[in-house]
Amino acid sequence: METVEKGQPFPCIEASSASLRTSNPIREVVDRIDTSQMNKSKPMIPLSIGDPTVFGNLNACEETIQAVVEVTKSCQANGYPKAVGMIEARTAIAKEFTVPNCSLTPADVILTSGCSHALQLCLEVLLEPGKNILIPNPGFPLYKTICDYIGAETRGYKLSPERGWQIDLKHLRALIDSNTRAILINNPSNPCGAVYPKSHLCEILKVAEEAKLPIIADEIYHQIVFPGNESIPIASLTNVVPVLSVGGLAKRFLVPGWRLGWIIVYDHHNVFSQVREGLERLSTLIMGANSLIQAALPKIIQNVPTSWHLSVLRNLHMQANYSYERLSHMNGLEPVMPQGSMYIMVGIQIEKSRDIKNDIDFCQKLLNEESVFVLPGQCFGASNYFRIVFCAPMDKLAEVGVLQDVMKLYLLIGYLRLFFQAYNRMSDFCRRHMRS
Amino acid sequence: METVEKGQPFPCIEASSASLRTSNPIREVVDRIDTSQMNKSKPMIPLSIGDPTVFGNLNACEETIQAVVEVTKSCQANGYPKAVGMIEARTAIAKEFTVPNCSLTPADVILTSGCSHALQLCLEVLLEPGKNILIPNPGFPLYKTICDYIGAETRGYKLSPERGWQIDLKHLRALIDSNTRAILINNPSNPCGAVYPKSHLCEILKVAEEAKLPIIADEIYHQIVFPGNESIPIASLTNVVPVLSVGGLAKRFLVPGWRLGWIIVYDHHNVFSQVREGLERLSTLIMGANSLIQAALPKIIQNVPTSWHLSVLRNLHMQANYSYERLSHMNGLEPVMPQGSMYIMVGIQIEKSRDIKNDIDFCQKLLNEESVFVLPGQCFGASNYFRIVFCAPMDKLAEVGVLQDVMKLYLLIGYLRLFFQAYNRMSDFCRRHMRS
Repeated sequence: METVEKGQPFPCIEASSASLRTSNPIREVVDRIDTSQMNKSKPMIPLSIGDPTVFGNLNACEETIQAVVEVTKSCQANGYPKAVGMIEARTAIAKEFTVPNCSLTPADVILTSGCSHALQLCLEVLLEPGKNILIPNPGFPLYKTICDYIGAETRGYKLSPERGWQIDLKHLRALIDSNTRAILINNPSNPCGAVYPKSHLCEILKVAEEAKLPIIADEIYHQIVFPGNESIPIASLTNVVPVLSVGGLAKRFLVPGWRLGWIIVYDHHNVFSQVREGLERLSTLIMGANSLIQAALPKIIQNVPTSWHLSVLRNLHMQANYSYERLSHMNGLEPVMPQGSMYIMVGIQIEKSRDIKNDIDFCQKLLNEESVFVLPGQCFGASNYFRIVFCAPMDKLAEVGVLQDVMKLYLLIGYLRLFFQAYNRMSDFCRRHMRS
Repeated sequence: METVEKGQPFPCIEASSASLRTSNPIREVVDRIDTSQMNKSKPMIPLSIGDPTVFGNLNACEETIQAVVEVTKSCQANGYPKAVGMIEARTAIAKEFTVPNCSLTPADVILTSGCSHALQLCLEVLLEPGKNILIPNPGFPLYKTICDYIGAETRGYKLSPERGWQIDLKHLRALIDSNTRAILINNPSNPCGAVYPKSHLCEILKVAEEAKLPIIADEIYHQIVFPGNESIPIASLTNVVPVLSVGGLAKRFLVPGWRLGWIIVYDHHNVFSQVREGLERLSTLIMGANSLIQAALPKIIQNVPTSWHLSVLRNLHMQANYSYERLSHMNGLEPVMPQGSMYIMVGIQIEKSRDIKNDIDFCQKLLNEESVFVLPGQCFGASNYFRIVFCAPMDKLAEVGVLQDVMKLYLLIGYLRLFFQAYNRMSDFCRRHMRS
């Protein structure tokens, strides 16, 4: 083959600063963890991945699968949807998320390529270099990743573990200046598992109203709350504060890979008209979510029975309780009981440690010695914590250990064998490295 | 319900300048077209939409559908893929697009949410405010849309209709300055339907090599070329120039709504290491394409028979020939015969017009009087042209006109009834408005 060839090689091609400052803190912390010294005699138990499908114990509902199979076979949804999404799917979301004080129409809904894309559009439409946004600390790292990419500043407001990770409102207020463009809240939350009561949401709205700041509400864990807690969309509690709520199928329907997310514009007094225009313009860049899932969405929302959602919740709640119970009895650990979502944050009492320097050191040594992988709190801006994903108990991979009576019940249910192992190993680890 | 409420309404919330400068020229031109005066006695025939599935005459292959149905039913691909895509799918693409002079591995492939997302990542990784890129004129408007959003400059290089829309290389060279970061080529092309021969691709590579500029090759219409033309990935012709090639399932497999695209990094001398890092970082923002389609991709590529691809091509070629033939005989029109893709550009000889001011006026009057909708060339940066999508002949919607002998064959084949109508109406229109 004839080729154009010369002796002169190219110089290295530079990447843009925006691309290089786009960084995922989880990856950066995880990349620093050395897996070469892992204890190979013990099978790896990853309690690090926020994907409910990884271990096969939590499966999508049959009705969800059936809806997509039917749409695919019909061959009627292979073309380009509108950039903001198919009208039928947007209608279904509008109906599902209408709240008494703010009735939604399809025009208030934009479908996106997953909730991450929804967050990206919301942050891009409100922020630019020189502006800032208030985000939770500890919090989901993608908020900062996207803002770094935009070149906008994030300011982390403190959450108080001793009050169920509620927002330190004084700190929140103190962070606001003339360049602040929005407050981002995440409820129910990752990594904290917090679910805010109505009273706290109203306090947050009060701050937003006083400062005339819109709210971005990351409500991807909506309705994944345990008994005694209520999942309240923050937009349902205000007639004044404009809210962009983001969500998606990922967590509630256990299909994160399908990448169907949405933005819901709750705009009581038409103050978001420019923001709507900006969102619509930004949505034309990549033309949104997969058409098959969009077309199946109305059926998925309609056909998945409440009993299925409740059974997923029961599993998660059981696993949350078990995790909390075990962790509470380990030397030097202080778990914070989650009220929803799929995560538990565990404090490390460094003052009780024999030879643990910090959360990264804890996670590294736990991996080396016990092959249990949890994420250091520094991934989320929380030193001396670590996060456990408790959606992942996994009989499939299980090596069954010595049974204790209390565990037999769980084993009968079928899921918790490896989970049990993981906590046994963690307990051994804490006995060695932490004082009681 | 208790709500936070006060008399003080919010001021209007401003959208970011990046969001507001993100504009789709097609939409802006189309928005200026007034559909209220359309001739309602004639059914609308839209020859404007670049979606091969719209009219139901071109359907996805059964094997394509089957692959997705199987993956969906298996429930094994509902979780998060890696941000750069599933290894199996990237392996399949690497195998499919390896060229003799540049062997690919999965590490050279990033899957994206459609080819638009692939383009966005490539432009974002190479450009920033103050830098510029050379793009085809006429050309696909998304290139400028994305660059406007980034805040980078686009410089349109001239294509010569009289030489099959080849690039005016002198003009291309003259546009390069010290802030130029890349040359973007689109081959086969939208809206021109051009397919470049090897000799011309080598000339382009020579310019890139001399200026030490990487190439972004939009090759989404790869292999959609008519007899006598060859579909050559530009990366196959160089051992020196680094190339980012973007493509996707959309056009070749007739499933644009599925949003599966890819970036292929052809990097002969490892000059793209920083660019690879930037692309990987950017890919973490929205976590890529739908997992079901990713999982089905290897089977789709393997199982769709060549005979199916050839039959789609035969249809398109027939429609291209027919379109060219009809348009050539109309007063005041100069079609340029396409060599591939799904589009034909038609010159309007304004000097022969009785009362047509320009391409927008032509399209507006054609719509008003004949209910035929084509896109004005200004959508693509080409005044006094219009673009016809010829993948859309549509027996479904057909009103059958008086048959002419030459058309009987086409009617037997089944597709071209409305297409036939569209050209009859256009011909009548040109007789009224243009001199011969």
